[in-house]
Amino acid sequence: MINYKKHLENVIESILHKNGLSFLLVFSPSNIFYVTGSDAPSALVISQNGEVSALVTRLEYVRAVSEMRLGEAYAFTKQDEVSEYEKIIKGDLYEAIAQIVGSGEKIGIVGGSLELKDQLKGKLNRELADYTKEFYLLRRSKDDEEVRLMEQASRIAEQALRRAIDLIEPGVTESELAGEILRVIVSSGAEPSFPPIVAFGEHSAHPHAKPSLKKLMRGDLVKIDLGAKYQGYCSDMTRTFVYGDPSEKQKKIYRAVLRAQEASIDAVKEGVKAKDIHMIAYNVLKEEGLSAYFNHGLGHGVGIDIHEEPYLNSQSETELIVGDVVTIEPGVYLAGYGGVRIEDMLLVQRGTSRTLTFFTKDIAL
Amino acid sequence: MINYKKHLENVIESILHKNGLSFLLVFSPSNIFYVTGSDAPSALVISQNGEVSALVTRLEYVRAVSEMRLGEAYAFTKQDEVSEYEKIIKGDLYEAIAQIVGSGEKIGIVGGSLELKDQLKGKLNRELADYTKEFYLLRRSKDDEEVRLMEQASRIAEQALRRAIDLIEPGVTESELAGEILRVIVSSGAEPSFPPIVAFGEHSAHPHAKPSLKKLMRGDLVKIDLGAKYQGYCSDMTRTFVYGDPSEKQKKIYRAVLRAQEASIDAVKEGVKAKDIHMIAYNVLKEEGLSAYFNHGLGHGVGIDIHEEPYLNSQSETELIVGDVVTIEPGVYLAGYGGVRIEDMLLVQRGTSRTLTFFTKDIAL
Repeated sequence: MINYKKHLENVIESILHKNGLSFLLVFSPSNIFYVTGSDAPSALVISQNGEVSALVTRLEYVRAVSEMRLGEAYAFTKQDEVSEYEKIIKGDLYEAIAQIVGSGEKIGIVGGSLELKDQLKGKLNRELADYTKEFYLLRRSKDDEEVRLMEQASRIAEQALRRAIDLIEPGVTESELAGEILRVIVSSGAEPSFPPIVAFGEHSAHPHAKPSLKKLMRGDLVKIDLGAKYQGYCSDMTRTFVYGDPSEKQKKIYRAVLRAQEASIDAVKEGVKAKDIHMIAYNVLKEEGLSAYFNHGLGHGVGIDIHEEPYLNSQSETELIVGDVVTIEPGVYLAGYGGVRIEDMLLVQRGTSRTLTFFTKDIAL
Repeated sequence: MINYKKHLENVIESILHKNGLSFLLVFSPSNIFYVTGSDAPSALVISQNGEVSALVTRLEYVRAVSEMRLGEAYAFTKQDEVSEYEKIIKGDLYEAIAQIVGSGEKIGIVGGSLELKDQLKGKLNRELADYTKEFYLLRRSKDDEEVRLMEQASRIAEQALRRAIDLIEPGVTESELAGEILRVIVSSGAEPSFPPIVAFGEHSAHPHAKPSLKKLMRGDLVKIDLGAKYQGYCSDMTRTFVYGDPSEKQKKIYRAVLRAQEASIDAVKEGVKAKDIHMIAYNVLKEEGLSAYFNHGLGHGVGIDIHEEPYLNSQSETELIVGDVVTIEPGVYLAGYGGVRIEDMLLVQRGTSRTLTFFTKDIAL
């Protein structure tokens, strides 16, 4: 069970107290989930004393009340007629926030679009200091329980992949395998972290292929990228296989990608620059004459969001911290031929890393 | 097959020519899909002569090329090393747009966040007139082929619901039914238009319940809300049943919601105000003493997006137009007891409407 109280304490200490804020306003479903265990509220107002008021639409109110592990939920509405079970604050979202913060002096904000911030500043008639970066730093550093959920999410995804592979035979479609993956993930009480990618043959050259009615043929590359989200935390993993006997060209590409992945995984630990890890994979592919076909970043952070900080690419100056969970997923994509991507999810530790995804990496099915 | 050329002509005539624009910039995946048949590009630049340049990340380039039914795709990148199969424009997205529009005088924009518009104005050093509203009006009016795809999407969703109902027995979980729904939708070559909602018993009081490991018991309300997205176009439908013999209270709520739905469906036709249709359902529920538990709008437009204009709620002044496809979905939710929602999707016509969803509305399974 996630210790949401600890998450809240982190936010209060590292953001409210440190910066002398009266209130912190939190927007975006995943930021709100990090503090409360529910993504149903539209906004949180956290006071310097640690009181959490969640502002919720009437539509999401009952779900918020049942999911929230801390704080008080209020439905905001302009309607007069409401039910007996709703605690109401009269007004739109901005008016509701204004009522809670009152004359509070220094107010901070996390998340929210420019539109929202503009509206809010107008309503509150005060400047809002932005602490989104500081909040994301807290979210990056996963505690033991968060890691445990991400491991469970990985086990569910691996089971789904195994079941999908059981269905493999000539003529099976990408869509059938993707459908089975979704069935297993959702039946297990999880959600997909993203729509699974299943791509055969030359279709695997699309890094983000959408599953289609394309049928499997002997000799096809089979690329499958999938993840589960379990109790709010995501997993992410990609495997590529050949159905039948791999050709020399397929083997050469596969080995190059695997070598790039292994070399960059070896470098993952606290304090290393994200772009340096990207470049290790890039340089292996460069040696193989394949770097022009590695057309994306090496990886990304994973947590409540499937893509979150830190991002690992050729530009990223961020240093990895203990508790970061990141993917390492080099890929090579040849238009009209096919693509190979191999992806694992790793926990960053002091001096090393721990792999959270375990499915076999054999090229043959 | 959607006639994307016709969609483009509509945009050129009603927006570019009518307002004397040199170029129109189009953002957001569904707006881009409406013109090209692909949601892979990050932006489109449409010239007054009807040339369409799609700006795509390197990651999405191959998919864009294979999906786009018109226009030319260019990968924008700052990298020097690219593959032989990519047509490249050097620079970030804003620089790439600046290169295409050159000294073009009057430039319009559709979609895009405030952040994006601010950045773009800075880079282009010109004002951008916003035509998002005009573009959405074009998207609202579905042509025959768009309607045909939404009917096919509805047939796929209905088949998925039938298969899920086949699995119903005491002890089956919400997650198992949701998993089967996803399997059928995705295996058919479609995608879910949204994660299906399956809620038993008091859980059905959450309008947007997430499927859980809750087990079915005799006498439970069973609320299922699902949709498929087929070749880019969505369907949406909700059914509520009782497993076993319905109680008097369940029957009373069910009949009230059904009567509210039927009365508002009868009013759907060209020229009617959206809020007037909402109020018909509201007033039926008011007569039954249930209106305080109808905590959301009556419906919404459906098309490339699962939620799009027009919105049907107590505030909406919009008048329905021929070709609008809208949902009619009154609901009553009693916290701690359960909820009933019944939803169909309708095509707005002159003087009448046509229902696009056909699943039985019996209260008993």
